[in-house]
Amino acid sequence: MSLNFPEFPDDSALGTNFKYRRFIQLALHGEMELGNTDISYPYTIDVLKEGYSIVQEGGSTSNACGTITLVKGPHNIIVDTGLPQDKSLILQGLARHELTADDVHYVVCTHGHSDHVGNLNLFPNATFIVGHDISKGDEYQLHDFKQGIPYEIDAYVEVIPTPGHTRGDVSVVVYRTCYGTVVIAGDTFEKFEDLEDSDIWQNNSELPEDQEQSRIEVFKLADYIIPGHGPMFKVPDEFKHEVKIVRTPTE
Amino acid sequence: MSLNFPEFPDDSALGTNFKYRRFIQLALHGEMELGNTDISYPYTIDVLKEGYSIVQEGGSTSNACGTITLVKGPHNIIVDTGLPQDKSLILQGLARHELTADDVHYVVCTHGHSDHVGNLNLFPNATFIVGHDISKGDEYQLHDFKQGIPYEIDAYVEVIPTPGHTRGDVSVVVYRTCYGTVVIAGDTFEKFEDLEDSDIWQNNSELPEDQEQSRIEVFKLADYIIPGHGPMFKVPDEFKHEVKIVRTPTE
Repeated sequence: MSLNFPEFPDDSALGTNFKYRRFIQLALHGEMELGNTDISYPYTIDVLKEGYSIVQEGGSTSNACGTITLVKGPHNIIVDTGLPQDKSLILQGLARHELTADDVHYVVCTHGHSDHVGNLNLFPNATFIVGHDISKGDEYQLHDFKQGIPYEIDAYVEVIPTPGHTRGDVSVVVYRTCYGTVVIAGDTFEKFEDLEDSDIWQNNSELPEDQEQSRIEVFKLADYIIPGHGPMFKVPDEFKHEVKIVRTPTE
Repeated sequence: MSLNFPEFPDDSALGTNFKYRRFIQLALHGEMELGNTDISYPYTIDVLKEGYSIVQEGGSTSNACGTITLVKGPHNIIVDTGLPQDKSLILQGLARHELTADDVHYVVCTHGHSDHVGNLNLFPNATFIVGHDISKGDEYQLHDFKQGIPYEIDAYVEVIPTPGHTRGDVSVVVYRTCYGTVVIAGDTFEKFEDLEDSDIWQNNSELPEDQEQSRIEVFKLADYIIPGHGPMFKVPDEFKHEVKIVRTPTE
């Protein structure tokens, strides 16, 4: 199954270059024939491990692990690989979907911290996107995330730069899921609570101003966010309004 | 075997807080009794894989892998874990030293890029130091690398912050090897050639000014440098002189 989105020369006015939006725009404007197109949900999302972070009394230690997510569909994608000790958990999670590590096409790590990159070597056939670096075997493909350019895995999944937590952070955007658009955001969002208590994310941010902007970009895109250290949450309406976004209805 | 270095109240004049220098100073000045102290080389260093980086014609792809180093001694330490595909190479390298992955006490990754963090899950008993993050299992220990404070593994091995290539880069300093002081520097130094051609390291630097300063700090310390993408090299005398260092003889 594939959707070939025609180029839409005048889409600069949409304020985004994301293809799903083009698709919806085109469809709504009757400029695209949907007759032979499969419009079911091409991807399902399963959080294999819900991340957490707990600062211990006294503040000198904390317990933490990053969220591990499977995006299953035309490409099988693991987003973040947890702590080194999470190997079995990942393999068991894949097995629940009748997949093995060999079936994983992409591994995306939102950034290079040790609770997100613990298990890269499980996936012999994968292309790796770890922060801004894209590799397969020892071959690295240059891609200009620094200029804000998304990397398209296919028409439904993009990796976008979301600098701030580290300079090289990326997030994964999955369009047309049963939740609408889901952004797997790594530590750009620590957890739902950081929407109200900004210390939670700012205390771990290399570049807080950049991260603030990245968070706004994610709010614009996302119906749901999977954060790095907490459960998936729906973006509250007031956060959509606060960033003054006029969205095109997606269904 | 352990050496307990006495505090040396007036060492601010030395311009460094590294214990090995104190030790040598004390020994040279006859203020320390060496009679019962083992002054052989406590650590040996074996580069299990020599890193490389080759930009392909046209510049849109490159082939690269980070150097993987074993520091063997009172603690067994792996510095950088290469690409995901390097699992067997690491295990074979350990076997040559009659070690298994279970025997590795510390894994230090100089930074979180995918050619350095590919095999974290091989080491069930290790403490991990990945950039600024120190963890065992899911417990993270806070350490203020940001303020320039080294993390001492023992009297002979320290992890020091060397920001620049990324903000969170660290290097491993091994004192009293048969090469003198060896600094395993990750991509703070790409390869020997970057001493003359600064584009080599600056093109991959998040913070070039910080990296320049980190390079100077490493020049001050090191007799030999193991860079991230090339063979070990001796620090040329002129680089010692350029940074105007008056060193205490180490042997």
